[in-house]
Amino acid sequence: MNTIKPALPRGTRDFPPDVMVKRNFILNIIRAAFEKYGFLPLETPAMENLSVLSGKYGDEGDQLLFKILNSGDFMAKVDNDEKTFLDYGKLTPQISEKGLRYDLTVPFARYVAMNQHDIVFPFKRYQIQPVWRADRPQKGRYREFFQCDADVIGTDSLLCEAEIAILVHEVFHNLGLRDYVLKVNNRKILEGIAESAGDKKRAGEFFVLLDKLDKIGLHHLKELLEENRFHRDFIARIERIITLTGDHQHKLDFLERNMSGSEMAREGVGEIRKFFEYLESLEDGIKQTELDISLARGLSYYTGMILEVKATGVRIGSIGGGGRYDNLAGVFGLPGMSGVGFSFGIDRIFDVMEELNLFSDHNLPATKILITNFDPETEKYAFQILSKLRRADIRAELFPDPVKIKKQLNYANKREIPFVLMIGSEELKKGVCSLKDMNRGEQEELTIDALIEKMNRI
Amino acid sequence: MNTIKPALPRGTRDFPPDVMVKRNFILNIIRAAFEKYGFLPLETPAMENLSVLSGKYGDEGDQLLFKILNSGDFMAKVDNDEKTFLDYGKLTPQISEKGLRYDLTVPFARYVAMNQHDIVFPFKRYQIQPVWRADRPQKGRYREFFQCDADVIGTDSLLCEAEIAILVHEVFHNLGLRDYVLKVNNRKILEGIAESAGDKKRAGEFFVLLDKLDKIGLHHLKELLEENRFHRDFIARIERIITLTGDHQHKLDFLERNMSGSEMAREGVGEIRKFFEYLESLEDGIKQTELDISLARGLSYYTGMILEVKATGVRIGSIGGGGRYDNLAGVFGLPGMSGVGFSFGIDRIFDVMEELNLFSDHNLPATKILITNFDPETEKYAFQILSKLRRADIRAELFPDPVKIKKQLNYANKREIPFVLMIGSEELKKGVCSLKDMNRGEQEELTIDALIEKMNRI
Repeated sequence: MNTIKPALPRGTRDFPPDVMVKRNFILNIIRAAFEKYGFLPLETPAMENLSVLSGKYGDEGDQLLFKILNSGDFMAKVDNDEKTFLDYGKLTPQISEKGLRYDLTVPFARYVAMNQHDIVFPFKRYQIQPVWRADRPQKGRYREFFQCDADVIGTDSLLCEAEIAILVHEVFHNLGLRDYVLKVNNRKILEGIAESAGDKKRAGEFFVLLDKLDKIGLHHLKELLEENRFHRDFIARIERIITLTGDHQHKLDFLERNMSGSEMAREGVGEIRKFFEYLESLEDGIKQTELDISLARGLSYYTGMILEVKATGVRIGSIGGGGRYDNLAGVFGLPGMSGVGFSFGIDRIFDVMEELNLFSDHNLPATKILITNFDPETEKYAFQILSKLRRADIRAELFPDPVKIKKQLNYANKREIPFVLMIGSEELKKGVCSLKDMNRGEQEELTIDALIEKMNRI
Repeated sequence: MNTIKPALPRGTRDFPPDVMVKRNFILNIIRAAFEKYGFLPLETPAMENLSVLSGKYGDEGDQLLFKILNSGDFMAKVDNDEKTFLDYGKLTPQISEKGLRYDLTVPFARYVAMNQHDIVFPFKRYQIQPVWRADRPQKGRYREFFQCDADVIGTDSLLCEAEIAILVHEVFHNLGLRDYVLKVNNRKILEGIAESAGDKKRAGEFFVLLDKLDKIGLHHLKELLEENRFHRDFIARIERIITLTGDHQHKLDFLERNMSGSEMAREGVGEIRKFFEYLESLEDGIKQTELDISLARGLSYYTGMILEVKATGVRIGSIGGGGRYDNLAGVFGLPGMSGVGFSFGIDRIFDVMEELNLFSDHNLPATKILITNFDPETEKYAFQILSKLRRADIRAELFPDPVKIKKQLNYANKREIPFVLMIGSEELKKGVCSLKDMNRGEQEELTIDALIEKMNRI
C-alpha cells in the first residue's frame, strides 16, 4: 500500500483531549441548565432526506447543503441524455437523495410532525449535535460545527421567552462569562412599520439588510435601503426608532405614541412589555437584558420575540440567539404550532472564553497518579496497587513498559499528572510505596492504605 | 410551499427523550471507566477525505462508504466522455472527494500520524461518535450507529490487554449486565498453524471463514474449508484445537505440546500466558474471562491478542470486541506503532439491557415539580416560586398556559413528574402553596421554604 498523506477536509477540525475538556466544560453547563429547566434530550440522524432539507434555508442555504451520493450504481437510473450530464443542477436530484443536516431546527420540526400523536405538548426538547454547511471556511467559520438548541413547541405563552432569558443568564453566570448583553426585540414592530409604510411584503428583505447594521453602520444602512428602493418616509421612521436611547420603558412608550397606526406593531410592543414584566417580577430578573429595536436576526422563520447574546469584551458576532416562530412544522403537515427556541454558539463561546482566559483552571481529565514501571518483578505488585487505587475510584495509570524513569516522569509531566508512585524492589520487600508530589517535588514513603486515604482527601 | 411527508432515511433513527436517557446511562458508565483508566477524549470530524478512508476496509467496505458530492458545479471538471458518465465507478472519484467515517479506528490512526510530534506516547484515547455504513438495513443493523472505542498506541506491553479486560469487567458490572463472557485468543496461534501447514498467505481468508463458526457450526465450517481448498491435515489440526475443552492452562499446555514447530504459534501461547498471569495476580481478576481458540474476529488488521464479549442470556452477536494491531498508522507514514483497542457495541448493549429489563429504574430526566398555571394573576407568584426552586437547584417547570387543570395534570403524568404544585388565589393570599404527591395522591399545604426543604430531602 502506498503511503497516504494524512489530512483533514477543509473547514473541519479534530478536537484533541485538551480542547475536548474545555468544550465538555461548556456543554455540561448548558446541558445541566437545559435539564433543570425541563427540556428533554433528543438526537436525530446526521442524514436527512433532501426533500426534508431543501427549500428551508433559502436558495443560498440549498447551495450549502452537503449532499450524499446514492449508493451502488447511482448513474443507472439517470436520464440518458447529455443535457442532464452537463447540468449539475438537473443531475443532482437524480444521483442524491440525502443530505447532511444544516441546522437542528428543521430536523426538530420533522421529528415533531412525525411523532405528533405520541408527543405531550407543550414539548420542551434540547439537542446538542454537529451540523454541516459547505460554506467557504474562514477564521471562526467551519464546515462542521456544533449547535446547542432548546425549544418549546405547542404554546404561545411569553412565559417561555422569559424563561429562556433567565436560562441564558444562568448559563453565562455558570460559565463565568460576565461581559455580555442579552438583546431582545420583536419582529412585529418592524414588520408593522413596514406594513404601514406599504412595504409589508418586503419585510423579510428589510430584516436581512437591517441585520447588517452592526457591520456597516447606520449611514451605509440608509444608503443600502435607498438603493433597494425602500420609501424615504419609511427610512426616516426607521432611523428614528432604531436610534432610540434609554431603557425599555422609555423606548416602548415612544413606540406606543408613534405607531398607533399599526395593529401589528402595537402587538409587538405589548409582547415586549409582557416579557419584561415577567423578568421584573423576579429579583435581579432583568440583569443584562436590553431592548434593541434594531435587532433583526437573519433567519426568516421568526415571527415574534427575538433574542441575541453579544459578548461585550471581545470583538466577535453573536454568541447565541433565538426567537419565536409560528408555523415551523406546517410544511410537514402540522400547522399552527407556535414555538420558541434558543441556540448557544458553542464555538464562539469557546473562543471568547479562550481569549478572556476563563479556562485557566481546566486541565486534562486528571489521572491523579502514575505508577512507574521498574522491572517485570515489581510490575505485578504495581499492577495490584493500581487495581486497589481504581477500586477506591482513584484515577490511576501504570506505565506499560519498564523504560527509563526519566521517560516515565516526562510522561507524567506532559500529561499533567500530579503524583507519581515509585515502586522498586525495596518498596516491594517492605510492602510500601514512595509517593512523589510532582508540583512540590517532595517524596514520602506510605503504606497502600495511607496512600488511598491521602488521595481521597486531596 | 407544498406539504412534505416527514420521513427518515432508511436505516437511521431518531433518539427520543426516553431512549436518550437510557443511552446516556450506558455512555456515562463507559465514559467514566475510560477516564478512570487514563484514556483521554478525542473527537474527529464526520467527514474524512476519501483518500484516507478508501482501501482500509476491503472491497466490500469501500462499497459501503457514504460519499459526499463535491460542492458547486461538480460536473465541470469531469472528463467529457460518455464512457465516464455511464461508469459510476469511474465517475465517483471525479465528483466526490469526501466520505463519512466508517469506523473510529482509521480516523484515530490519521490523527496520530498527523499529530505524531505533539502526542506523548503511549497515547491513550477514547472516542464516542457515530459512524456510517451503507449496509442493507435490518433488525439491529443501522446505517448510522455509535462506536465507543478506547485505544492505547505506542507500546506492545501486554499489560494493556490485561487492563482492557479489567475495564470491560468494570463496565459490565456497573451496567448491571452480569450474563456475559469475555473471550480472548491470539491471532498468532492460528496464523502459526496456517504457516506451518504452508497456508500462511491464506491466514486472512481463514480468519474470515472461522469467524462464521458460531453461526454455521463445526460441520459446515469444515465443508467450507474443504471447498476453499485448505489442506486436509490443516483442517484436522484446526478441528482438534478449536474443540479443546478445559481451562486456559489446560488448553495452553496442549497447544505447547502440539505446535513446537511454529515459532509464531509459540509466541501467541506465551502472550496468552502472560495476559492471564496479569489477571491472576489480582483478586477476582479472571472472572468471566475465557480462552477460546476458535475466536477469530473479522477485522483484518489484528496481529496479536483479540478479545470479544458475548452476552450469554440473550441471542445476539458480540456486544464488544477488540485486539492488538502492529501497524495501524503505517499507511499514513508512521510505521511500527503497536497498539491495542476495544470497542463497546452500544446499540447491542442497549438491546440486551432492554430485553433483560435492566433499565427499569431509569426514567426521564426528572423534572421534580410541575407548577400549575391557574390564571394571569397567580401566574407571576408561581413564576417567582419557580425561580426560587431553580435557585435551590431543584428541577421545576411552570405550565406555560392557564388551561384546564386536568390537562396540566395529564402533562405531569405523561412526563412522569412526581409532584405538582397548585397555586390559586387562596394560596397567593396566604403566601403558601399546595403540593400534590402524584404517586400517593396526597396533598399538603406548605410554605415555600418548607417546600424547598422537602424537595431537597427527597
